[in-house]
Amino acid sequence: MELTRVIVILAQCVWPLWTQVIHLTDMYGTIKSPNFPESYPKEIELQWNITVPEGYQIRLYFMHFDIEPSYLCEYDYLKVYSDTEELAVFCGKENTDTEQVPANDAIVSPRNVLSVAFRSDFSNEERYSGFEAHFSAVDVDECRDRNDEDLACDHFCHNYISGFYCSCRYGFLLHSDNRTCKVECSESVYTERSGEITSADFPKPYPKSSDCIFLLISMLTCTFLFQLVVSSHNSSQPSRSESLVGEQHLQVCSPGRSCSQ
Amino acid sequence: MELTRVIVILAQCVWPLWTQVIHLTDMYGTIKSPNFPESYPKEIELQWNITVPEGYQIRLYFMHFDIEPSYLCEYDYLKVYSDTEELAVFCGKENTDTEQVPANDAIVSPRNVLSVAFRSDFSNEERYSGFEAHFSAVDVDECRDRNDEDLACDHFCHNYISGFYCSCRYGFLLHSDNRTCKVECSESVYTERSGEITSADFPKPYPKSSDCIFLLISMLTCTFLFQLVVSSHNSSQPSRSESLVGEQHLQVCSPGRSCSQ
Repeated sequence: MELTRVIVILAQCVWPLWTQVIHLTDMYGTIKSPNFPESYPKEIELQWNITVPEGYQIRLYFMHFDIEPSYLCEYDYLKVYSDTEELAVFCGKENTDTEQVPANDAIVSPRNVLSVAFRSDFSNEERYSGFEAHFSAVDVDECRDRNDEDLACDHFCHNYISGFYCSCRYGFLLHSDNRTCKVECSESVYTERSGEITSADFPKPYPKSSDCIFLLISMLTCTFLFQLVVSSHNSSQPSRSESLVGEQHLQVCSPGRSCSQ
Repeated sequence: MELTRVIVILAQCVWPLWTQVIHLTDMYGTIKSPNFPESYPKEIELQWNITVPEGYQIRLYFMHFDIEPSYLCEYDYLKVYSDTEELAVFCGKENTDTEQVPANDAIVSPRNVLSVAFRSDFSNEERYSGFEAHFSAVDVDECRDRNDEDLACDHFCHNYISGFYCSCRYGFLLHSDNRTCKVECSESVYTERSGEITSADFPKPYPKSSDCIFLLISMLTCTFLFQLVVSSHNSSQPSRSESLVGEQHLQVCSPGRSCSQ
């Protein structure tokens, strides 16, 4: 029997089995081995390619699993992929040191595609009833799961089924990048003899992507003292406002002189 | 001021304010007080009626809340309903003994409808910036949340976004009610001189909605001994198979005699 298997495997390298591919775009469904609940036929190569819209993952779990056991699942097997990444290989009816069955564990695809490949070889020494599995699209909570700094929201992140959007705290405006929160702060005029100016939201970290102009004017002499031009950039780690001058672009302009930085 | 308020309230009982109703059927969105982030106008009655498809609930939370405080929110308020059930009443800027603000708590509607009613009275003594809230449809996991016995699945419950379906363990069939699992067990013939018959799935609880016939025939005398007809019903609490005779409909029929129960 083993020699025959080797010959068949070698033959399959030269004339590989024809793989039947089934494309599924439903949001949920059931996949079963051929003839289920009767035993599955020999020499089968079947692959289900499941695709759901962007913003979803795919959850897969098995209600029944009984596939011919073999060392490292080299004969009959069920493999689960996402793109080209192999997520699991199963065979048998219970876990051993070298082979796994899905049991009650669910597999969740990292993206919106999942493939299930089932193969039976040329013979089954016993009757194996095959498998039955349920798949369904599950929403990705980007506000909870997303680690990508470029896509994270500056203030509020609102998840919805299939996507998310950002918004800003009261007093802030959403930048055109739809992520960053900025302030509208051009031309703040200060005419008191003394006082304090602070960056927006002080002492919290000051907003990104904002251009603020502070005009300090002496009303006693009606002279323009100087102008501070403060620009913050879309920094991934905004510094605290105490270090405003040192870490950001700050211009001090006096009448009749060029601006210093 | 208080007398004026009383007069206005009485006047409104006779000529109630016209309530502007906004119907929303989007799966997510933002609702804001009029003029937000500027202060809201006086004498406003606005209601947002949010409806999402069956199989969803609606989650609502607030990013900003600042409404004129008053005892028991009798002047300006924001109320949240689902159908006619009042889920919350808010006013003010922070919680007091008698008034609540939404803070960081989310409200989840029990069904697929949610209404938000906002009212401002004839005057605001200060400037109040109003509110901004996010709502989104969230999937109901019927397999986890459903307590309704009639809708629960007998064996496997599979949730998907906007619904669920049932399936049965290997060897069982789904009844036409799409919930119950039955067995195909008609006309089991027993010809041994002695033996044991058990209900399907014994010693687990026997399946609902199944009609099983056990034919016991003596091959020595070629005579039909008797026939057991066992019917189980869609009981909400199936008894264990040990008590099969006592709790279910069981007929014993002998040739030439009527069936006994």
